[in-house]
Amino acid sequence: MLACPFEKIHPSFLKKDALFFMSHAFNLAIDAWNADEVPVGAVMVHQQEIISSAHNQTRSQTDPTAHAEMIAITMAAKKLGDWRLNECELYVTKEPCPMCSGATITSRVGKVFFGLSDPKMGCLGGAISLHKLEKSNHKPEVTGGIMKEPCEAIIQAFFQKQRSQVSA
Amino acid sequence: MLACPFEKIHPSFLKKDALFFMSHAFNLAIDAWNADEVPVGAVMVHQQEIISSAHNQTRSQTDPTAHAEMIAITMAAKKLGDWRLNECELYVTKEPCPMCSGATITSRVGKVFFGLSDPKMGCLGGAISLHKLEKSNHKPEVTGGIMKEPCEAIIQAFFQKQRSQVSA
Repeated sequence: MLACPFEKIHPSFLKKDALFFMSHAFNLAIDAWNADEVPVGAVMVHQQEIISSAHNQTRSQTDPTAHAEMIAITMAAKKLGDWRLNECELYVTKEPCPMCSGATITSRVGKVFFGLSDPKMGCLGGAISLHKLEKSNHKPEVTGGIMKEPCEAIIQAFFQKQRSQVSA
Repeated sequence: MLACPFEKIHPSFLKKDALFFMSHAFNLAIDAWNADEVPVGAVMVHQQEIISSAHNQTRSQTDPTAHAEMIAITMAAKKLGDWRLNECELYVTKEPCPMCSGATITSRVGKVFFGLSDPKMGCLGGAISLHKLEKSNHKPEVTGGIMKEPCEAIIQAFFQKQRSQVSA
């Protein structure tokens, strides 16, 4: 297996903005690649600190629900001792799928920031907008396009590598 | 805490039809009530056998993702050693929420049967139809209304009990 050709980003801790947190999510996507998982990473932020972080683990866990966002949500709830994550912000490199988009509603995540949008299966504005379900009790605030280019490049490169391995 | 006033149903194993499997899911909803969890139960069926079963555990696990369906999906994938559940049928007492509806797509569950439908948050035909997402690679077959009355009655009674406890 080829090691991930992307380099980790190490931003200063003096400026904890969206780029800071998404850099950490991106670094987790690199870890995912090196573990032979689809390179998606996520971090959950509470009061300007990262309280949980994960990369996609569906293959190693043989668990279709083990997406980065799901693991980060579960870990954050355990850490806070509360399943309601209203005061939390989720940073994830790719627009969440139907399951993970739904999980941000179920767990009442306050804000979601993602990198690459997904017009095919993304459910926070891409294919559909689950965060705007009319009768929902919770509607997360959503911002896409944070560090879009590297978040997209790493996924494209991963699948390109996979296709070349299959055809080789 | 008041014990669940509903009685478990014990159908004959000689006829493994939708009512048989939904009865098992309903019995799990009773177990959920007795564990002070929202009474929803789910079973996953493969080749006419129940390979995983669970009730909602969000409170005991302090995990907003610990819905009955999610646990049943994860356990089924572990059991089969494959995250693709195309040959499986999920029986759940209530129409899945956005997260769980999404999980049936992510895990490629072949067929979903549910009891009570949920026009507010159900995403397999109730509020929205995630199983019909235009560009999705997987579209589970969905049948609602199986044992609708008891599945609805137990949830209504549970929330009625909760409201009376709050106002007492």
